[in-house]
Amino acid sequence: MSGAVAGVDLGGTKVQAVRVEGCEVAGQSRRSTPAGGPDDVVAAVVACVREVGEVEAVGLGAPGMVDADAGVVLAAPNLVGFDRPVELAARVAMALGLDRERVSLDNDVNVAALAEHRLGAGRGVDDLLVVFVGTGVGAGLVLDGQLRRGRHGFAGELGHTTVVDGGRRCGCGGLGHLEAYAGRGALEREARERAAAGTRTRLVELVGEGRMKSKTFARAVSEGDELAVALVEEAVVALGIALANVHLTVDLQRIVLGGGLADRLGDPFVTRVATASSARSALPTVPDIVPGELGDLAGARGAALLVVEGVTGDPGRRSVP
Amino acid sequence: MSGAVAGVDLGGTKVQAVRVEGCEVAGQSRRSTPAGGPDDVVAAVVACVREVGEVEAVGLGAPGMVDADAGVVLAAPNLVGFDRPVELAARVAMALGLDRERVSLDNDVNVAALAEHRLGAGRGVDDLLVVFVGTGVGAGLVLDGQLRRGRHGFAGELGHTTVVDGGRRCGCGGLGHLEAYAGRGALEREARERAAAGTRTRLVELVGEGRMKSKTFARAVSEGDELAVALVEEAVVALGIALANVHLTVDLQRIVLGGGLADRLGDPFVTRVATASSARSALPTVPDIVPGELGDLAGARGAALLVVEGVTGDPGRRSVP
Repeated sequence: MSGAVAGVDLGGTKVQAVRVEGCEVAGQSRRSTPAGGPDDVVAAVVACVREVGEVEAVGLGAPGMVDADAGVVLAAPNLVGFDRPVELAARVAMALGLDRERVSLDNDVNVAALAEHRLGAGRGVDDLLVVFVGTGVGAGLVLDGQLRRGRHGFAGELGHTTVVDGGRRCGCGGLGHLEAYAGRGALEREARERAAAGTRTRLVELVGEGRMKSKTFARAVSEGDELAVALVEEAVVALGIALANVHLTVDLQRIVLGGGLADRLGDPFVTRVATASSARSALPTVPDIVPGELGDLAGARGAALLVVEGVTGDPGRRSVP
Repeated sequence: MSGAVAGVDLGGTKVQAVRVEGCEVAGQSRRSTPAGGPDDVVAAVVACVREVGEVEAVGLGAPGMVDADAGVVLAAPNLVGFDRPVELAARVAMALGLDRERVSLDNDVNVAALAEHRLGAGRGVDDLLVVFVGTGVGAGLVLDGQLRRGRHGFAGELGHTTVVDGGRRCGCGGLGHLEAYAGRGALEREARERAAAGTRTRLVELVGEGRMKSKTFARAVSEGDELAVALVEEAVVALGIALANVHLTVDLQRIVLGGGLADRLGDPFVTRVATASSARSALPTVPDIVPGELGDLAGARGAALLVVEGVTGDPGRRSVP
């Protein structure tokens, strides 16, 4: 593939596209994810791609459960109207006048992990875990230099590993999952509950009824807000447990910690997670734990890699929300 | 390799050898592990091998930290005098009059997992976890049909994953590890402590000051002893958490549960672990969890496979206690 390609990260709140020429990002575009259903979403993706200019091929990263080989989003709870399968790759190809095989699709976390491995903080590392701490917690596992999807596409579902048995309720309904302690959405739910129970916090003062963003937590922590500090400390411990457990299971060289919340909380957060993890690893060798390098372009750049590297045809390329 | 080979499982309490011809076990021998240091241990291994008859090559499984390529046991806390490196493969080869390269060595848990994968309950499964619940808890991880040792040899160190943060102290000094809830040694320590604190239990009545064996726990449970039932239930939950977490990390097809304690507690135990695990997996597809098939010959048969399959030369074939 010699010409330019587009990589598109289709998220619950925004559509982010990049134009990649060779190894360089030569342009980008971005818009809000429409809430009007699949037709509008396809139109938004197509508009983002057109905005970065003529391309030969398109890679798409989508949330939820994805059948990569078929180019179908099976179910994506965060996208309105995606509660049934949507043939996203075929529809985007048709709208752009591209052959169907010029449009590739995979799960958003997988492609973002691929990007950090090939282009970001995981370059040159064969055994790598890339964890994205954002609204939820997702992860991509690279073993022997290859992204491991797993036969059923469940590899890297780290957000739903148990860190406190019987503990805080997760968005998925389970108890004590990592995501229930470290995801921004769970932190917000917990903060609202504690505020409703009488705890005073800058988190509510800063946003009122609005959404507590990652930067809201970062600011409240920097101001020494007790609740924000306590919630983030619980997130640090939960991540420390989960990351040590992964290392003890597969033996890692490095762990990259990205995602909106980790990015906003920055290096001190990553350092504290590393300390919490190595304290629990019981091994003489622990992996480096480092911040991600690609920020919120990881997904779009990884989607472009689907095309550039022709990463397709693995068995079991489904993934779950 | 056309002739007979011997596989030897060198354990903390016994040395178990098998003679393998083709795919058949054609003989076996067994003796207690001497406590007099490396010379005596080498002599016991050699005697066991001689007892099964003339062989062309020998595979050894040893506990603790092993440098498989060098044929050296680096440190094995359960073997007297193995607190410094012992050139086990070379010494056994010399004593038997075999060329050095005719003797292979690997970690005991790795070889036992290999045996269940090639010959036992994991046959035909590409993505497999084999867990041995004995005095401690060890595991071997097979991904894409290959035993994963990991770059530092730490893959499968499941016994030291955290299941209850800050919980019961593990033999390694850590807190809340799986092994502290599910290993026979930890169950015995806990039972002794609770008995000393006044809890009456058949476990003490059955063995007095003697060692609580796996069959002691099995018998006390079958008699409905409250403490034994409670301790085993805690083991079930701990295993349920740990196994679900591994599945969510790497995506497994099957989990084999072997080792002395699991073997003695039998199918009802395995079934309850499976229930506890699937309740925590948060995924539509969960792996089968089945009992091991090779019993206490898994280690010796796996050691023979080291020779038969020529499984050597992987990077990082060390392992930890």
